[in-house]
Amino acid sequence: MSIDYAAQILEGSPRAAARLISWLEDEDPRAYEWMPKIYPHTGRAYIIGITGAPGAGKSTLTDKLARVIRKSGLKVGIIAVDPSSPFTGGALLGDRVRMSELSNDPEIYIRSMATRGFLGGMAKATGDVVRVLDALGKDIILIETVGVGQDEIDIIGIADTTCLVMVPGLGDAIQSMKAGIMEIADIFLINKSDKQGADQLCSEVCSRLDIDSQIKTTVWTPLVTKAVAVEDIGIEELWQAIETHRRHLFDSGRFQEKRRDRIYQETLRMIHNELFRVVREHLQQDGKLDSAVEDIMSRKIDPYTLMREIVSEWLSIPQLKKEAS
Amino acid sequence: MSIDYAAQILEGSPRAAARLISWLEDEDPRAYEWMPKIYPHTGRAYIIGITGAPGAGKSTLTDKLARVIRKSGLKVGIIAVDPSSPFTGGALLGDRVRMSELSNDPEIYIRSMATRGFLGGMAKATGDVVRVLDALGKDIILIETVGVGQDEIDIIGIADTTCLVMVPGLGDAIQSMKAGIMEIADIFLINKSDKQGADQLCSEVCSRLDIDSQIKTTVWTPLVTKAVAVEDIGIEELWQAIETHRRHLFDSGRFQEKRRDRIYQETLRMIHNELFRVVREHLQQDGKLDSAVEDIMSRKIDPYTLMREIVSEWLSIPQLKKEAS
Repeated sequence: MSIDYAAQILEGSPRAAARLISWLEDEDPRAYEWMPKIYPHTGRAYIIGITGAPGAGKSTLTDKLARVIRKSGLKVGIIAVDPSSPFTGGALLGDRVRMSELSNDPEIYIRSMATRGFLGGMAKATGDVVRVLDALGKDIILIETVGVGQDEIDIIGIADTTCLVMVPGLGDAIQSMKAGIMEIADIFLINKSDKQGADQLCSEVCSRLDIDSQIKTTVWTPLVTKAVAVEDIGIEELWQAIETHRRHLFDSGRFQEKRRDRIYQETLRMIHNELFRVVREHLQQDGKLDSAVEDIMSRKIDPYTLMREIVSEWLSIPQLKKEAS
Repeated sequence: MSIDYAAQILEGSPRAAARLISWLEDEDPRAYEWMPKIYPHTGRAYIIGITGAPGAGKSTLTDKLARVIRKSGLKVGIIAVDPSSPFTGGALLGDRVRMSELSNDPEIYIRSMATRGFLGGMAKATGDVVRVLDALGKDIILIETVGVGQDEIDIIGIADTTCLVMVPGLGDAIQSMKAGIMEIADIFLINKSDKQGADQLCSEVCSRLDIDSQIKTTVWTPLVTKAVAVEDIGIEELWQAIETHRRHLFDSGRFQEKRRDRIYQETLRMIHNELFRVVREHLQQDGKLDSAVEDIMSRKIDPYTLMREIVSEWLSIPQLKKEAS
């Protein structure tokens, strides 16, 4: 502990932040020596989620939005969560390409994260990285992720404002992927709005929202905006829409509520991950799991019974033992 | 326990199977009274994963393949995992539509599963449903899922043979989604092969596989087949390709290896889920987490320290306590 990473991060060192994030990704125990030290300095950054189907232009939009936000003097962090390439590590390449484009501005920090294996839990990892960038002094943190799958919905749950990027011409099958994510979007952005079908998509979204607002008594009616991200059109308007939503959250008290919910979910997730990590390591170390697998293979025991035995044996709280058995 | 669901399932009752699957989906404790009882009778069915981008025609292909398999007298189960609509429950609708098409054959059992909330874990749920259909006497189980996201990759990891469905004209962005899944596919099926671009896609896939086989010393070189699923073209050939891969797995000894790996992962996943269920319920019951969240909100404590305290308090094995602290 000769280098004080927490102090360096709080002073705004991107190198110290990068180191801590790498430890988090590797589940290196050093990460958890430093995270408690930066935690008291977090909770200040505003978090924006950018989601949508592959090909919707999320990366371009995120980059353009980052530049617009920078004009108002705010510092920006970008977390690009790439679930596409768990094997190829493609996220790292994308990282480097984008880094070079925005690298002339030291106040924009970009980090790509490839989807981790079974054990990781992307939402937990993303939450940890958000906290590092928050402590680093970023005012606005943009999280960019593909809007499909439960992992991604959990990731988007971290955001204060969620923007769903849609494009004309991706076809019904693609758009229907976002049925779930549509219900958690605060802003709908129709990207590539100069393309054929943009107006139709826009009116489809609007009429869907219209129906929703008649059925539900929602406090917030999502905004719909248009953009052509590659040509820098509509980005200022998107930023204004985000600002409108942010004001709504603060004025209505929803901001504190949302943060409380998030901390609840995150804490639960952390406790669970840590318990599992310790249990898993122990199972693997003493070869207990390997021999159990042989017994399951030959159908001598079943995994359900094994699971109950392990959980009730290893947890020390009497109520838990009772529940688990 | 007046009705013996296990006995009924083993006798082939689809109603008993449907009931047990519903309990599994709802995490009803009754599910775990019956799962250990059917477990000794599982492990016999061969599992085929069908994956690909939305719009690739997976559902049609799966249905046609099921009919071809039925011709050889084998009984078929279909599990359609729909990650698109965690909120709307859209999977159930699709289920009904498809049921009506294949319902004239009582030996085809179809079950759609919508993505569950934060608590579920689709891969674990899918594995449980596979075991129910296996016990029900299905010889071949087809799992159909969208090929993006970690959840879906975990789901596909359950299969003995994985078939990636690709189509011409979906665009680079869509195809690149499958960078991760490409590396676990045993068979590449070019669907809609009468469309423009099919030959090009086919040669792209082949040359990619060619490069891979030069770099890696893989035991299995994936097969590439073509189909027009809506017109029933190429389905027999797909089934033959699956048979070829199945024979390869048995002859090479890879089958047992794959099954062992899967049981290892599944058992870990079960322990993971059970830990979470027990921890969550206990934390919610005693209100401990609610008061902790308030302290975290005000930055009096941090969730990392809280997590360690709880984990070291709850683990009853001394070595575990040491690791966790």
